[in-house]
Amino acid sequence: VSEGDLIGRIASLVGTRAGVLLGIGDDAAVLGGDGPWVVAHDMLVQDVHFRWSTCSPADVGHKALAVNLSDLAAMGATPVAVLVGLALPPDGPGGDDVAAMYDSMEALAAATGCSVVGGDVSAAAQTVLGVTVLGRPAPGVAPVTRAGARPGDLVAVTGALGASEAGRRILEDPPLASGLPAAAALAAAHRRPRPRLREGAALAAAGVRAMLDCSDGLAVDLDRLARASGVRAVLDLGRVPVAPGVAHLAARRGEDPAVAAATGGEDYELIVAAPAAVLEASGVALTVVGHVEAGAPGVAARRDGAPAPLGRLGWEHGVG
Amino acid sequence: VSEGDLIGRIASLVGTRAGVLLGIGDDAAVLGGDGPWVVAHDMLVQDVHFRWSTCSPADVGHKALAVNLSDLAAMGATPVAVLVGLALPPDGPGGDDVAAMYDSMEALAAATGCSVVGGDVSAAAQTVLGVTVLGRPAPGVAPVTRAGARPGDLVAVTGALGASEAGRRILEDPPLASGLPAAAALAAAHRRPRPRLREGAALAAAGVRAMLDCSDGLAVDLDRLARASGVRAVLDLGRVPVAPGVAHLAARRGEDPAVAAATGGEDYELIVAAPAAVLEASGVALTVVGHVEAGAPGVAARRDGAPAPLGRLGWEHGVG
Repeated sequence: VSEGDLIGRIASLVGTRAGVLLGIGDDAAVLGGDGPWVVAHDMLVQDVHFRWSTCSPADVGHKALAVNLSDLAAMGATPVAVLVGLALPPDGPGGDDVAAMYDSMEALAAATGCSVVGGDVSAAAQTVLGVTVLGRPAPGVAPVTRAGARPGDLVAVTGALGASEAGRRILEDPPLASGLPAAAALAAAHRRPRPRLREGAALAAAGVRAMLDCSDGLAVDLDRLARASGVRAVLDLGRVPVAPGVAHLAARRGEDPAVAAATGGEDYELIVAAPAAVLEASGVALTVVGHVEAGAPGVAARRDGAPAPLGRLGWEHGVG
Repeated sequence: VSEGDLIGRIASLVGTRAGVLLGIGDDAAVLGGDGPWVVAHDMLVQDVHFRWSTCSPADVGHKALAVNLSDLAAMGATPVAVLVGLALPPDGPGGDDVAAMYDSMEALAAATGCSVVGGDVSAAAQTVLGVTVLGRPAPGVAPVTRAGARPGDLVAVTGALGASEAGRRILEDPPLASGLPAAAALAAAHRRPRPRLREGAALAAAGVRAMLDCSDGLAVDLDRLARASGVRAVLDLGRVPVAPGVAHLAARRGEDPAVAAATGGEDYELIVAAPAAVLEASGVALTVVGHVEAGAPGVAARRDGAPAPLGRLGWEHGVG
């Protein structure tokens, strides 16, 4: 497939939505509307962030866009436009696989109201998807950084944690799934994460002080939020919402389910710090997992009020 | 080097300029100001677009940003912000090489008034730089697409052509440089292209009808402009400005210098179509190389009024 043919096929697969004045096909795309704009870029690299043995082209397309949309969600922004840089090795994915990738990105773009407006394709030794997303907060709402947490704030998360990492383990070692009713949901959590855009926008509008998406695990990401804010975040392991199936899998490996949930990555849930009344006012379903206090910046885990070990904190999202 | 350390080092190397409300370090960057915004993304892949044997990390950093800025120049936009996705193989570039890459990008960003505001780093099998640029046209000036050329327009280019491809050949085959006074300039043209931002903005403000940057060679890119505009572009080979040294090198290979200049890629000069008075009013130094007429969309080359062969038209930018 020539570069020109591939770009033509890609252009035919994507739609153009509000805010896009000029989409795929020129030197650059053109977006209308006033600022501020929120922009982010994340890559998915074959054999680093995903394996073809456990993820389909459609999974990878979805995930590459989803992890970027999650960064916009964590700022409270709504996505407008997407640029995709796609590098492809000679042994595939082929044209139909690329189409499946874009179909899947396009489905997520349509579901979240944004448009793929451009990008680049290239040869490479392995598949690399570099996705850039551009979005905006609602009028009058400031983008939420990770740096605003203050002593007295509560720390809360959307959803339940640990599903993606459990799913990754099951996909890499299928016998782990035997007798585990949640296995399919765990695999789906790993392959097709859902960015929390609606929740992020509602939390930003309610005025949360700090927000971050949970890409490398609650413990690591809450540590980032605490350090950026110059505060100590206390994580109560007994309150961590553990996704269905995670406890079962952790038990088989002799792990603490709460630690597994707090240190598994790629859940793409949101972590927020805010006064209780702000969390309440957001209308978003949240689980309070800790609080913010003055002290040496960073995260401290406790269980039943006593310091608790978290184990390996240095997780970075990837295939392990 | 850990991902966190590398990101910290990168953040220390880049500055923040006008229009950036929040730079590197959060989930996303935030840009202020009204639209329209012009956005583009291009990748540079090791052994596809460059080789370490002929380009330094500083060259590659410069070039990855320059080729993207050239896309903004071709729309008439001025750059504001840059996102960089950098994938690195285990055998290097190392931390100092990455710093050299970013120093070089930062120098070009400073020279052109834009800021590196974010991105991603990852492991990979080869070095991949995926750069996204965001810019804006001057107030009241519309971004210039490649689709507006009309019969009667002249076709003109900035600068002289063929230097980058000649430089690539010299770098790949150093004996070619012997007795060639322009050799160093040709190599520099390949390693450190200069995006024509000032010229692009002036041409857009003057009201050129179509504009495109010359990344794959004048013949290929003018063909794109003509097809996008639904017109025939006539390229007069006798008027193609041939960069110093290109004729000498072409003669050694038994090639027509004008064909070499019109089919070599990566010059990143601008190609414009506009009435003569508009070109004149822009104040930009240009060489008229042809004109636009009605007819089957595409490019037709002539010499002294007679049809002339262009040879290989299918060049796509890369190491050959």
